[in-house]
Order: sequence, then C-alpha cells, then structure tokens
Amino acid sequence: MSKEKQFVKEITPQSEDFSRWYLDVIRKADLMSYSPVRGCIVFKPDSYEIWELCQKELDARFKETGHRNAYFPLFIPESFFQKEKEHVEGFNPELPWVTEAGGEKLEERLAIRPTSETMIGHMYAEWIHSYRDLPLLINQWANVVRWEKRTQPFLRTSEFLWQEGHTAHEDEADARRETMQMLEIYREFVENILAIPVIAGKKTPSEKFAGAVDTYSIEAMMKDGKAVQAGTSHYMGTNFAVAFDIQYLDRDNQQQYVHTTSWGVSTRLIGAMIMVHGDDRGLVLPPKVAPTQVVMIPIGPPKTRGPVIARTNELFAELKQAGIRVKVDDRPDQSPGWKFNEYEMRGIPIRIELGPRDMEKGQVVLVSRVSGEKRMVSQERIVEEVKQMLEDIHKEMFERAKAFSKEHFGSVDRLDELKAFLEEKRGFVWAGWCGSDACEAQVKEETGATSRNIPFEPEVVKTHCIACGEKAQHTVVFGRSY
Amino acid sequence: MSKEKQFVKEITPQSEDFSRWYLDVIRKADLMSYSPVRGCIVFKPDSYEIWELCQKELDARFKETGHRNAYFPLFIPESFFQKEKEHVEGFNPELPWVTEAGGEKLEERLAIRPTSETMIGHMYAEWIHSYRDLPLLINQWANVVRWEKRTQPFLRTSEFLWQEGHTAHEDEADARRETMQMLEIYREFVENILAIPVIAGKKTPSEKFAGAVDTYSIEAMMKDGKAVQAGTSHYMGTNFAVAFDIQYLDRDNQQQYVHTTSWGVSTRLIGAMIMVHGDDRGLVLPPKVAPTQVVMIPIGPPKTRGPVIARTNELFAELKQAGIRVKVDDRPDQSPGWKFNEYEMRGIPIRIELGPRDMEKGQVVLVSRVSGEKRMVSQERIVEEVKQMLEDIHKEMFERAKAFSKEHFGSVDRLDELKAFLEEKRGFVWAGWCGSDACEAQVKEETGATSRNIPFEPEVVKTHCIACGEKAQHTVVFGRSY
Repeated sequence: MSKEKQFVKEITPQSEDFSRWYLDVIRKADLMSYSPVRGCIVFKPDSYEIWELCQKELDARFKETGHRNAYFPLFIPESFFQKEKEHVEGFNPELPWVTEAGGEKLEERLAIRPTSETMIGHMYAEWIHSYRDLPLLINQWANVVRWEKRTQPFLRTSEFLWQEGHTAHEDEADARRETMQMLEIYREFVENILAIPVIAGKKTPSEKFAGAVDTYSIEAMMKDGKAVQAGTSHYMGTNFAVAFDIQYLDRDNQQQYVHTTSWGVSTRLIGAMIMVHGDDRGLVLPPKVAPTQVVMIPIGPPKTRGPVIARTNELFAELKQAGIRVKVDDRPDQSPGWKFNEYEMRGIPIRIELGPRDMEKGQVVLVSRVSGEKRMVSQERIVEEVKQMLEDIHKEMFERAKAFSKEHFGSVDRLDELKAFLEEKRGFVWAGWCGSDACEAQVKEETGATSRNIPFEPEVVKTHCIACGEKAQHTVVFGRSY
Repeated sequence: MSKEKQFVKEITPQSEDFSRWYLDVIRKADLMSYSPVRGCIVFKPDSYEIWELCQKELDARFKETGHRNAYFPLFIPESFFQKEKEHVEGFNPELPWVTEAGGEKLEERLAIRPTSETMIGHMYAEWIHSYRDLPLLINQWANVVRWEKRTQPFLRTSEFLWQEGHTAHEDEADARRETMQMLEIYREFVENILAIPVIAGKKTPSEKFAGAVDTYSIEAMMKDGKAVQAGTSHYMGTNFAVAFDIQYLDRDNQQQYVHTTSWGVSTRLIGAMIMVHGDDRGLVLPPKVAPTQVVMIPIGPPKTRGPVIARTNELFAELKQAGIRVKVDDRPDQSPGWKFNEYEMRGIPIRIELGPRDMEKGQVVLVSRVSGEKRMVSQERIVEEVKQMLEDIHKEMFERAKAFSKEHFGSVDRLDELKAFLEEKRGFVWAGWCGSDACEAQVKEETGATSRNIPFEPEVVKTHCIACGEKAQHTVVFGRSY
C-alpha cells in the first residue's frame, strides 16, 4: 500500500479560489483527515481541542442557566419519526438505517439520530407528570448523522458533533423566554469567544426547523461573503408534546400539554471560525479557543543557544503556571524563519521570539498573528503582557470581522440590484419582504440567495418587497449560504 | 396513553435478591430510564454527571501523560473487520449494520463501532511515516454499540459511553510501557476516586481482547461476590499494524511495523460503583464523583424557620464558594425525616442539619451517609470540616470495600472446594492453573467461575492446577462475573 505524504505545498490565495484555500488550510494545518466513510471526517487533535474548548465555555453557560446534561440513545425507532409530520418530512431523506443487528434482521428499522426531539419527547412523556416537574432543562452532547448529498469538512459532514438542548415548560411564555435566552447565549459565545460577529433574528417559515413553530438563528458572514448559520434555537409550541403525549397536571389540576424548545450548535462552528478569520498565510485562531495560544521560539547563533533556551524554558514555566496554553519549539534542525511560517500557518495567536540581544535587554518580542504587530516587552512582565495581547488580538479579530461584514452588506430594493450586488461585492443585503413564500422562493431561484433571517435589529428598514414590490412586512437579510 | 408514575415503594434487601436490589436502587435514585430501543438506557442527569466527573478526572490524567483527544467516525466499513482475523471473530456477532442511507441501499454495509481499532488503524497508516511521528498518543471519548443478548443497566448496555486510547510506538518495549502505564492510571483512578479496590493483572489467553497479544485488567468485587472488569489495557504487538499496514521509517532508514496499544473504561464503572458501595437504604456515592456532595436541611418549628433558612443559605454560599457541590432543601411541604430518607437513598455523602438549637450554639450537624456518624462542628469551620469529612468518607468507603473483598476471598486447591466456596461465601478465590485452555474451560463449565486475571501481586501462591492437579504455572483469581 502506498503511503505518500499528503502534502499541500502552497496555500491557494483566497481571492483565487476560496474553497480551495479552505481545503488547503485545514489539511496543511493538520485539522482533519478524510475518512473512508463517505462524508465523515476525522477530527484530529487540534480541531478536536478547539471543540473541547468550545464545549467548556458553552457547558458552563448552560449549567449557570440551570440546565443539566443527560444522554439518550443513538438509535431511534422508525415509528417515532412518523409521529410529527413536518419532522419526518424534513429528516427522512437524510437518515441512515440499521436493519440488522446481532446477526438478525430487526423487526423495526432503527434510524441513527439526526437530532433527538423524538426520542427525548418519548422519554419526557414518561418523566413529566406535574407542574412540579417543570421546567425540565436538559442538554445532550452527542454525535449525530445526516446523510447529506454534498459535504464539506466541518461545515457539513455526514456525522458531526453537537449539543442539543431540549426543554419542556408549563406555558408558551416560559418556553419562548427559554428560546430567546439560549439564542442570546449563543450570540454572546460566538461573538465573545470565537470573535465572530453575528446577526440574530427569526427564520422565515420556509427556513424554520422541521416541526418548530418558530426558529431563531445567528448568522455569520464568511470571507467569501457566504453565510453560515452558527446556531439555532427553536420554539416548538405543543407540536412535539401532542405528537408524543407529553402532558402534565397544572396548578389547577388540569391536564395540559407542555411547550418545548430545542437549540443547538455544532462542530460547523470550527469551519465558520476558519472562514471568518483565516488569511492567505493560513489559519488565524481566536485566542480563547486556540489549543496553543503562544509559541516560544528561541533564536540566535549556536554559541548563545544554551542560555537562551534555559531562559525560554523559565518564561515558558511562568506562562504555563498562569494558565496560558503555551509551547516551546527549540528544535535545532529547523530555522526560525521556517518556524515563523509554520506557526503563522497554524494560526497560533502569539509568537514569542527570544534571542541573545533580547537576553541582554531583559526583553522578549511578542508578535501578533493577526496584525503582525511586534511588542518588545520586559521579561518580568511577560504574563501580563501576553494576557493583554491575547485580549487585544481577540478584539482586533472581532473588529476586523465586523468591518468586513459591514463592507459586504448592501441594501437593495429590486432583484436585479441583489443580483448585481452578489456579482460585484458578494455578501449580505437588507431587503424588504412581503411575507409570501412565493416571493422568497423567487429570490432564491433568481439569485441563489436565501433569507438568512429577519433580524431583531435591522440597520436599514425597507418598505417594499424585493420580489413583488408590494408593502414589506419585514426587513430580511438575504445571502448565499453554506 | 397511560402515564402512571413508575414508583418503587421499597428497596429489596441485598440479601434477599441482589439483582432486584440493584434495579430498585437505580430506578428509585433516578439514575436511568429504559429506552424503547432494546438494551439501550437513558443516562439521566445524576448518572450522567457521575460520568462527567469521571471524565474530568481521567482526561486530566491522560493529558498529563501526553495524550490528546481526537474523534473518529462512528461507522466502520465491513471490509475493515475482515482484516484482523481474531478481531472479526470476536466482534462480528455483536455488530449492528447500517445497510441503507439517504434513501439508497449502501454498496458496502457499515458497522456501528463496537471499538475503533480498525478505523484508527486505517488512519494511523495514513498519518505515520517516520519514527518522528512516534509515539502517537490519542484518546477518544465516544459512544460504542455491542448488540448484547443479555443486558443490564450500566453494566452491559447495547450502547454505552467510554473512552478508548489508541497508541502507536516504535517498538515492543515502548508499547508495553504504555500498556502498563495506562493500567496503572486506571487502578489509581478507580481506587482513589471511586473508592473501589481492584486486583490488577494479566488476562489468560482465552479471556484476552480479540486481536491483542496481551490484555491486562483491573477487577473489582461487587457486594454479591461477582466480578466486574473495571478497565482493560491491551498490548496489540504488530497485529493491527500488519493488518492495516502501519509502517514507519526507523532511525536506520528501515521500514518497520509500529507496535500498538489500546485501553478503555466505560460507563459500566457507574454500575460497579453502585454495586460495591450501595446498601439496603440505597445508593452510597463516593464523594469525589457525587454530583451533590452535601445536602443542607434546615429543621425546626415554623417560628424559627426564617433565621434558620437565612443562616443555611449563608453557609451554603460559603461551601459553594469553596468548590463543594452542595444543595439546600428547604421545601416546607416535606418533613425533615422524609428528606433524610430521600437523600440517604440517593447516596449524598454528607447531610448537614441546622436547627434553632444549633443556631444558638453556632454549630451545624454533619451526618455521614456511609457510617451514620454525626459531627457537631462550629459553623465557622464548616468548609474545613466538610472537606475533612468528605476525605474521611472516601477512606472509609475504600476500607470497607477492601475488608469486604478480603472476607470474600478464598484459597482453593480443588474444583469441589471452589464449588463449595461459591455456594457458601460467594466471591473470588486464589487457585493454581497449569496454563492449559482445557483446564480453564473445565473450571468455567463445572463452577460458572471464570479466570478474572493473573494478578501481579498474588497474596497466596498456589503450586498445583485446580483442574488437573499438575504443576501450576500461575496463581489465578477465579470468580463469577458480570
């Protein structure tokens, strides 16, 4: 069997071919491998650790707001999908089916979960009896499978990792409050941790989750102007409660259906993070989820190597002690220049250089991955300076992404304007919409753009529908999407 | 649909029916629900949180020893299983098969992973090129599926959660060192965190992992005298390297096969923990993995309720601040007696009582779940006292389990002695073994006991085989097992 190293020599420039750039970067930075199973990737340690850091941040937020984790079966009996009509229509085409197990043909086929509303609905019907059992606030960290026709690493894979929150409430008001709370947690996390600015809003009926009354989303703009839906939160009304008979005895001793929600984010966030921040030199990782935040590279001629490395190791220990994720690369067989390129390509937020001159001056040089800015700082203040620079890099990444999004945001009144905008600038637009499915479908058909959401805080208010010209009910963000 | 509360009135005494006791306890303590899928359970928040706490402890140990986490696909192509002969024979009977996906019949069936040696072997062949890539030290946290004929909650479920470490090394010595290191990490974790004493040793050839050269295990004794294999670590030699062509260029520029290991523990540890520590009043949770370590119950008549609850909340805040997992139950509609029973049944290590008299004396009462010991301690020293008592409870649980194991350990020379021992005392025995598969099979057939392992440190050394009476090669621990 041949085992040639799959080596990406150069990274294709983003301006030349963005998709090619993306694939070059994730291979060269060693984030993933294609697996022998169609559409399934291997999350290699660097991408998996980004996910672990995301999990830690999100899990703390879920627990602070009263949620607990649990784990439900991977397999879902076929009959469960039949219970909620829209849900089965939405997911049936993407299901893998287990038909044999333990050497026997199964009586009922089992789907691999694409999402767990049905299984959890079934269990909630067993667990919930009275208003005292409500609200029931549960989250699950799990793998899910959707047999997609076209896949793309991280953004759309047959199997992916996610969390799915599933909650049950006494009434609509409480369930809607939960739905909005979780959307806000996602917005805050994606902006403050991943440094990705998003637009929060409500999905149009044609774009909502199969089985939901209302779906809300946060939408992010990639550097090619396309959208990634970075998180969703759904108010299900009593749809799943009726389908699975989840009733409770209320405070007046009456049987009532619960109101449910579900909400999720997935490993596609890793893809979004790469496409929002990366540049022609490679990855640019947001400091708060970078597996390595700082790489230290001792430099200078062989004769000063000993003391320089010794001092590097001392400073390394200080940074590590302070909770900073730091590495030293003192390999003698690679040049500093090669190392600089390597860690820039891998997106490490800060490079620290330390050479004999710096030793004399009692300083180190901090170099920012995002701007290239160099700071000569006192070795004695290394921990504070590194923390400050990580903070500054986070802010700068967020501001750059925000500026990019602003530059690639149009305001259009007619379909031909939208078409021209997508040709020239790529990006998102504000557009009026009368509220009809037909007009929305027409936009998609003629321009390839879909409604991303109806933002809570539109920056521009449009008065007429982009398709039919009638009075607009909403100002909608349209864009092409992943 | 009827929704009667599944209510367990009383817990069956262990002495009456241990299996019944186990099922009563896990249902009454709300640890799990049966799911509609055969052999799959739902891990409810309290059992899942125990698993999360185990994960945190183990993950820190894995990372300290240089391992990183990654994630590999759930699906394994059928052809992969054919590559390692023993492996396919061992796992084939238990595999569920996906035969259709996305509306089409698959060309090749996909198994749901029962373990990931094959998938990871395939990927390692792609990733490993030179000795510089070794050792490769990767762990995966995942769900796995084995379609077992007989299942039991936590101990043996069709789907379960586990971690599987997979490492590749330059030579046998390094791989064997890793195998033993991970077994020792398991022993230390199970003893120091779960308070379960174990016997570490090597599996006999007939009991080793399908595809391994050597399997090592830690074995724990339950309160019914039966064994649970609490963790395993395998040295694979070059079996999987040859099957998947995992070769590297060594320091002398020669192609060599890597030597691999794998090692795992699973959610069955939750079952073991329950069966080692539980008693007729219910669960007894080891303090280090108890989701709630302390429950605070304000007591006394209604007129003093206000100040007592206020003080309870102050002390609660202090404990929480100190990192102790603590809860207050100040519900007025349940009596203190009912609450005492409830939290004893749920296995909370410490109950804190605070009433008007304690208020006067500036004290609280700490009650140990395991011994019933009461300590009146100064409110001012509550954090130190609680920490001390948690530590004491851990030690006491470990010592009690150790004493139980000692009492239920026999030393036998003949099969009829083993039979008599298993009838009268139940438990494990030391026995000599000549090394032949036939003798081992005879023990199993005539007594129902299997070889647990060949301990590294046998307390008794036997000179003759329990079955054939010939010279013993090893002293083996035999016992009935889950």
